[in-house]
Amino acid sequence: MIRVIKIGGNVIDDQHRLDMVLDACASMSEPLVLVHGGGKVATELAERMGVQQQMIDGRRITDAETLRIVTMVYGGLLNKSIVAGLVARGVSSVGITGADGDAVRAHKRTHPTIDYGFVGDVDTVNVEFFAKLLQAGHRIVCAPLTHDGAGTMLNTNADTMAAEIAAALTIRDDVELTYVFDHAGVLRDIEDPASAIQALTRAEAERLVTEGVITAGMLPKLENAFRAVERGVPRVRITRWDMLNAGTIIR
Amino acid sequence: MIRVIKIGGNVIDDQHRLDMVLDACASMSEPLVLVHGGGKVATELAERMGVQQQMIDGRRITDAETLRIVTMVYGGLLNKSIVAGLVARGVSSVGITGADGDAVRAHKRTHPTIDYGFVGDVDTVNVEFFAKLLQAGHRIVCAPLTHDGAGTMLNTNADTMAAEIAAALTIRDDVELTYVFDHAGVLRDIEDPASAIQALTRAEAERLVTEGVITAGMLPKLENAFRAVERGVPRVRITRWDMLNAGTIIR
Repeated sequence: MIRVIKIGGNVIDDQHRLDMVLDACASMSEPLVLVHGGGKVATELAERMGVQQQMIDGRRITDAETLRIVTMVYGGLLNKSIVAGLVARGVSSVGITGADGDAVRAHKRTHPTIDYGFVGDVDTVNVEFFAKLLQAGHRIVCAPLTHDGAGTMLNTNADTMAAEIAAALTIRDDVELTYVFDHAGVLRDIEDPASAIQALTRAEAERLVTEGVITAGMLPKLENAFRAVERGVPRVRITRWDMLNAGTIIR
Repeated sequence: MIRVIKIGGNVIDDQHRLDMVLDACASMSEPLVLVHGGGKVATELAERMGVQQQMIDGRRITDAETLRIVTMVYGGLLNKSIVAGLVARGVSSVGITGADGDAVRAHKRTHPTIDYGFVGDVDTVNVEFFAKLLQAGHRIVCAPLTHDGAGTMLNTNADTMAAEIAAALTIRDDVELTYVFDHAGVLRDIEDPASAIQALTRAEAERLVTEGVITAGMLPKLENAFRAVERGVPRVRITRWDMLNAGTIIR
């Protein structure tokens, strides 16, 4: 089984949490693709450089200068710091973007009214490239960047990228996708990490909301997991950074 | 034969020259490791961020903040732009730093009087890692960054890194190292690119200076090439960005 694990800002921006995730990743025996998001660093760098950041519906509008910033921060600083951290834990790791090995190719998003700029929607995942690196014993650390095949990098949502990679790898291997978020899974009691529901479908989650077992506010947080399952990932885990093998399975 | 080609600021900072080099690299049949330097971008970013840059003997002093900048610029922006450029030319490429695959490990430089900061002197090159990527048909694009094996990235001179990689690969393969510089080789007539001396040893170069055939000012520019030969690289080419198969062979 291949594990695809996605970590975002709540882990990346907190060295202690990141260390816990990297410790766990280093001790896993399964082949691993660790997809990381961006966190606060890109925003802070943009502010320091005086580059105005525009957000629409929680998505960063990626103009040419912002593309340079995210390529530096995601593809350089964060990616290499995670790679060096894993190698220091004794596991060989290779950091990639979608351009490396033509791993993840995308097209610039088109939208009738919003110009998202250099934002990429995934077209193809090079399964062979991932498989060979994993077979050679490397962990793959993937930055949320793709390329258009014509020389331009594109900024791509890390949750989506993790789901696309996991779905593509399913063609040859059993795959489990893990979204690391703020809770220990879907909890019956938000105060009790031990109250996580073991497994859940979208229909069951909606029923539990109706029955008042889980709060309606939980559903949007599960949306990425449901979508990944609908994209073809057989098993999606949502859990907290300190318990990567626990949490709730969405299927 | 494996070709290791090193490009620096005079190519990286000029899109036309970079395109010429990438065109040539894409059409080469030999396995290729393209090592790139930094160019002006890191200095410009540091200025824009208000980070003071200190140089001693032409070497950037790499404090913690400068290390972040070079990891972003070399490992992210420049590396991925070259990778995307090669992939756009139809050749699969993987961009790495010394941390990826534990490719190039180094130690922090110690000096009796100067604190160079996070500057790395190379200890080991992971020949197996390079060989496997090349055998799989990828070009390798290498940023001038190493790691210390304990999670810290280090800034490493690109000329040195190219020489170390070339020397290490010599263990299993025939290797030619090319330094791309401003002239079409060692010229008998500085105005005539066709006057390049085909092959030269250090002793012959010194003799030609004595005989007045080449100017003494040429010798320091050849120092990296002589050193690479002394490190064990069988053949070092120095040439211009528009003629990667010509120039002068140092041996």
